[in-house]
Amino acid sequence: MPKLPVSILGATGIVGQRFVQGLHDHPWFEIKALVASHSSAGKTYREACSWKIDAPMPAEIGDLVLGSLEQKLPGRLVFSALPSGAAREIEAKLAAQDHVVCTNASAFRLEPDVPLIIPEVNAAHLSLIAKQRESRGWPGYIVASPNCTTTAIALPLKPLAEAFGLRKVVAVSMQAISGAGYPGLSMMDVMGNVLPFISGEEEKMEVETKILLGSVEAGERRPSTVEISAHANRVPVLDGHMVCLSIEFEEEGSIERVSGVMRAFEAASPYYELPSAPDSPLVLHDHSDRPQPGLDRYANEGMSVVVGRVRPCPSLHIRMVSLVHNTIRGAAGGAIMNAELLYGEGLLL
Amino acid sequence: MPKLPVSILGATGIVGQRFVQGLHDHPWFEIKALVASHSSAGKTYREACSWKIDAPMPAEIGDLVLGSLEQKLPGRLVFSALPSGAAREIEAKLAAQDHVVCTNASAFRLEPDVPLIIPEVNAAHLSLIAKQRESRGWPGYIVASPNCTTTAIALPLKPLAEAFGLRKVVAVSMQAISGAGYPGLSMMDVMGNVLPFISGEEEKMEVETKILLGSVEAGERRPSTVEISAHANRVPVLDGHMVCLSIEFEEEGSIERVSGVMRAFEAASPYYELPSAPDSPLVLHDHSDRPQPGLDRYANEGMSVVVGRVRPCPSLHIRMVSLVHNTIRGAAGGAIMNAELLYGEGLLL
Amino acid sequence: MPKLPVSILGATGIVGQRFVQGLHDHPWFEIKALVASHSSAGKTYREACSWKIDAPMPAEIGDLVLGSLEQKLPGRLVFSALPSGAAREIEAKLAAQDHVVCTNASAFRLEPDVPLIIPEVNAAHLSLIAKQRESRGWPGYIVASPNCTTTAIALPLKPLAEAFGLRKVVAVSMQAISGAGYPGLSMMDVMGNVLPFISGEEEKMEVETKILLGSVEAGERRPSTVEISAHANRVPVLDGHMVCLSIEFEEEGSIERVSGVMRAFEAASPYYELPSAPDSPLVLHDHSDRPQPGLDRYANEGMSVVVGRVRPCPSLHIRMVSLVHNTIRGAAGGAIMNAELLYGEGLLL
Amino acid sequence: MPKLPVSILGATGIVGQRFVQGLHDHPWFEIKALVASHSSAGKTYREACSWKIDAPMPAEIGDLVLGSLEQKLPGRLVFSALPSGAAREIEAKLAAQDHVVCTNASAFRLEPDVPLIIPEVNAAHLSLIAKQRESRGWPGYIVASPNCTTTAIALPLKPLAEAFGLRKVVAVSMQAISGAGYPGLSMMDVMGNVLPFISGEEEKMEVETKILLGSVEAGERRPSTVEISAHANRVPVLDGHMVCLSIEFEEEGSIERVSGVMRAFEAASPYYELPSAPDSPLVLHDHSDRPQPGLDRYANEGMSVVVGRVRPCPSLHIRMVSLVHNTIRGAAGGAIMNAELLYGEGLLL
Repeated sequence: MPKLPVSILGATGIVGQRFVQGLHDHPWFEIKALVASHSSAGKTYREACSWKIDAPMPAEIGDLVLGSLEQKLPGRLVFSALPSGAAREIEAKLAAQDHVVCTNASAFRLEPDVPLIIPEVNAAHLSLIAKQRESRGWPGYIVASPNCTTTAIALPLKPLAEAFGLRKVVAVSMQAISGAGYPGLSMMDVMGNVLPFISGEEEKMEVETKILLGSVEAGERRPSTVEISAHANRVPVLDGHMVCLSIEFEEEGSIERVSGVMRAFEAASPYYELPSAPDSPLVLHDHSDRPQPGLDRYANEGMSVVVGRVRPCPSLHIRMVSLVHNTIRGAAGGAIMNAELLYGEGLLL
Repeated sequence: MPKLPVSILGATGIVGQRFVQGLHDHPWFEIKALVASHSSAGKTYREACSWKIDAPMPAEIGDLVLGSLEQKLPGRLVFSALPSGAAREIEAKLAAQDHVVCTNASAFRLEPDVPLIIPEVNAAHLSLIAKQRESRGWPGYIVASPNCTTTAIALPLKPLAEAFGLRKVVAVSMQAISGAGYPGLSMMDVMGNVLPFISGEEEKMEVETKILLGSVEAGERRPSTVEISAHANRVPVLDGHMVCLSIEFEEEGSIERVSGVMRAFEAASPYYELPSAPDSPLVLHDHSDRPQPGLDRYANEGMSVVVGRVRPCPSLHIRMVSLVHNTIRGAAGGAIMNAELLYGEGLLL
Repeated sequence: MPKLPVSILGATGIVGQRFVQGLHDHPWFEIKALVASHSSAGKTYREACSWKIDAPMPAEIGDLVLGSLEQKLPGRLVFSALPSGAAREIEAKLAAQDHVVCTNASAFRLEPDVPLIIPEVNAAHLSLIAKQRESRGWPGYIVASPNCTTTAIALPLKPLAEAFGLRKVVAVSMQAISGAGYPGLSMMDVMGNVLPFISGEEEKMEVETKILLGSVEAGERRPSTVEISAHANRVPVLDGHMVCLSIEFEEEGSIERVSGVMRAFEAASPYYELPSAPDSPLVLHDHSDRPQPGLDRYANEGMSVVVGRVRPCPSLHIRMVSLVHNTIRGAAGGAIMNAELLYGEGLLL
Repeated sequence: MPKLPVSILGATGIVGQRFVQGLHDHPWFEIKALVASHSSAGKTYREACSWKIDAPMPAEIGDLVLGSLEQKLPGRLVFSALPSGAAREIEAKLAAQDHVVCTNASAFRLEPDVPLIIPEVNAAHLSLIAKQRESRGWPGYIVASPNCTTTAIALPLKPLAEAFGLRKVVAVSMQAISGAGYPGLSMMDVMGNVLPFISGEEEKMEVETKILLGSVEAGERRPSTVEISAHANRVPVLDGHMVCLSIEFEEEGSIERVSGVMRAFEAASPYYELPSAPDSPLVLHDHSDRPQPGLDRYANEGMSVVVGRVRPCPSLHIRMVSLVHNTIRGAAGGAIMNAELLYGEGLLL
């Protein structure tokens, strides 16, 4: 079977590099076009990209010449790692030209007719695509993947929401520097330090989690009513966002049941046949000092969220720690898996 | 007025070094004896101590010869930075010999007749001293200072408890490596990483905060009934423990009132005349990205707790961030201020 | 063809873990026994090992039960990551029992009848094996691989020594923390700091490089007469030792010729068929700010030394920068490649 | 005696902040004007400056309103922390207006009539001032301080040059991030990494050291003929540049004599009465693992260069390690001490 030709927008950035890494040997997709800023067009990827992944750049991708958005992109499927400002206009234009845009940008995440998807959490929200195409008159469409930190919250909460119902969540993140892109943060600001603020991040964690855990009924989003309080911090870690969670259920469950429900979620996913799907979306760690970003971020090639320290909470019901590889499952890998889901559902033809 | 001669136990460790730094130019106290492990006795402090503070070791202290516990300690007041195991036996023995032990060790903190004190929070608990001496038959006594992270929680909660009452607290810490002592943590474990577990720390944060915010009635501790949930994390920061707090009051207060109460607490302290007392025990920072350990840990010479990002909490009532210099106000500086309080109250004669 | 059964001594340490990583899918060898300290015997590798590599531990290796040196080791070939003290006795005993020991320990490196080998540099030194077996009466034998930093010096110097002759070298290293093992260095000592001293390291860099660049004549080592001056420093880097080199030749060569000789060395190696041999032992980087440990240590799976900034030296003749992955090519990978060389030369039967 | 009013250009940058720290309590000088970029003019220093020193900003300086270069600067003496591009034009203009500019910028360092000064090394070069004023027709003049790393080389070499003569030096630096200013380096580039290149740095280290160690005869600079080879590296350290030195003398000296000469230099300086002069410009450390930036950069308030590990060099004559606080003695503190020297010499009236 021939592979689907795909394009990557924002290909030279940190998330763009993870798109390249995740797609260059993909069984279903083949990178046919890379697009970055105007000033990069015409250069090879090798020349234009300040490659920051410690595995070498795939040689054949390094030879690709960067294109521009003035040219027609090959094939229908486009992955976007654009900055949010640029994404708003460009992604809409591409959808209007019959492209399917799997985007990691935040521009359209809160639009009521754009599915914001984690395959194991809310695949049913893809029903919004029909509404989106109809209301906007687009032959193509946009599917968004959530904020990196949101992924570390929504994935473990999903089976808990179904089993016990959710009333309150306090989520305190310790986020890696790669989440700020490149050049991103000054070494003077972060070395040996913690920054207790990331602009716009707490709002994304709160609002997006409610969307992901909610439903779509009659073409309308019904966000979850859980109350979420997010505290976002930046720590001197290269990759891997960690989140401490305190959770209050509607119906209290024992630690054993809570752990059991998350472990069962591992096996129950209907999406295990997607090429990027991990053996288990949640990995529960038993050791008292895990997960750690330095040791656990690459669980199942960075596509699993790793959970540990599930224990009672004196203020709410339970406490735990969650970890996501922010630029793989939390960004490029999540968007790639969304595209695989679209393909599996017959929505890419 | 002649200075009181004082001794430091555990003088070569990280907290011991902060005792030296805080006491060597003290207006009321004078370091007369330094004690460390058996193997160090007879060496000069300069030889025995792996000095880790980036200000030079005071020259005259470097020349002091380390003593041992077999010798009689000069004067009555003793500061202890002993490990908790050794502290249990040694501190009791010293109190039985009419010494007053201001200790940073955890050994006696939970004993019902040992005052666990932050001067601005619960100086009234010093009334337990009489009970301690009577029940144990000691001419001297022990006064404990709390766990470093507890200090970053109890100090800002104190005025809020008085103004609004406290129902629930979720406290997530990001703690510096100096809190683990020297050599402490392996570079292989912490560089570019976060450890989501510190043995025994969460229990200390929870139990000690309730004691500090509680009362003493008829010689009995009445801990606060607030429900506290602690998550303790280690981050690659040298000094400075930061804590993200979500708080539910008995009576909800506006952000303005909450901030106002903490600012008022700055001025209201009756302990401003103690030499180590900061101008204000709480410093409220207005910038959205403060406090930061790298920039704010030395506020008022490391004796103030710095609070910032006071804002509404969607799950409880308010959220904020708190920072303490863990080895100054959170350890040696706190114990020194306790000794100053004892002196001011006439309890050292 | 069945694989040769092999054992790993010191399997739970940092270098032992790299042996596991390099051997668990090896085309010629198969891990049959893992040995660590007495206290670990009987535990599974998963239980006993504090795994520090950010790729997951191979699952089938995790299930292996750690053996002890009292048991007979399966097969003839043994890889040793023992500490140097223990290595002296144990490795000799194993060679006396007809084992072939490929060791990363320093214990035997300077023995005149033990080959100290980098395959591309001095494979001819294997002729010492016959002498070693004869003089010691051992049926088996020991082959040593050099100190990690030495590898970053000797590999690039080899083709230069042949082309121009070497008179003087000044080598200043900036070494990663993994070189100190686990737990190794205290976070308090290295975070945000540089240590200008590593015990015994400079002597190893100087003496071993001369052996590697020397010859063996009539069973006698003739070390190179080059004068080498080493300065060893520890820096806050996880993996990857970097060395700044100033070199004086016997016959001065232009930068073009020097670069050309190192590039030619890439292609000329006769050992390219060894499974662990990189495409090129030396990778020359053109960019002015490379190599960097964070970006280049995994060149050819960590088996190439990466060289850059080849430029004139105002004091000697040329300057350059060299980088080795200290626990792969500089330790476990180097010893594995030595074993492959022995196998290829028919010395393992 | 009234203090001299002084101005600081580039006051909000990393070096500008060190000027503020060094001058705000100065016995001879008083900060009367602060100038930064056009966009900052009219703001208070507190508003405009991203203060990065972990001691608090002096409160009275925080209240000063930033001026602009369009206004007349108060007094004659101006300290410049301007970027080199801007410095060229602005400093010349100020000298033409009868200002005395003590600059840390590199713009004029290589001009043959501009003294490049370290007081203990080459105060006699101040004789160039007369030539500068005459040839350029300036009532005022410019005095430059050297590159930060140069200071760590030239200060220890000075007494050695006088005692033994210098033939060759190989100098390998490991430089702190504060040397790149703010925001300076990306966290993505430097965390857990070493950068083996700093643009223009090696040339400065080589050329400036020769000027500092040379003489001025009949108004002409005679640079030293020593051959210097510099390798510049950036390491993840906040403050403190360390340099490994291999040195060849004209006349070889024993380690004892070499150390003795450097120790004698400590006492011999005629400049010990300058307020910023350290007790000894060189501090020799005996411990085998010192100096370290984390522990020694603040020796004598950051104004001493700390030297250690003086030992024989197998390739040249001796080896040693040198450390300077790059933004204090290596930048602002050096320029302040130059101004004190001018004052002491009667050149500021």
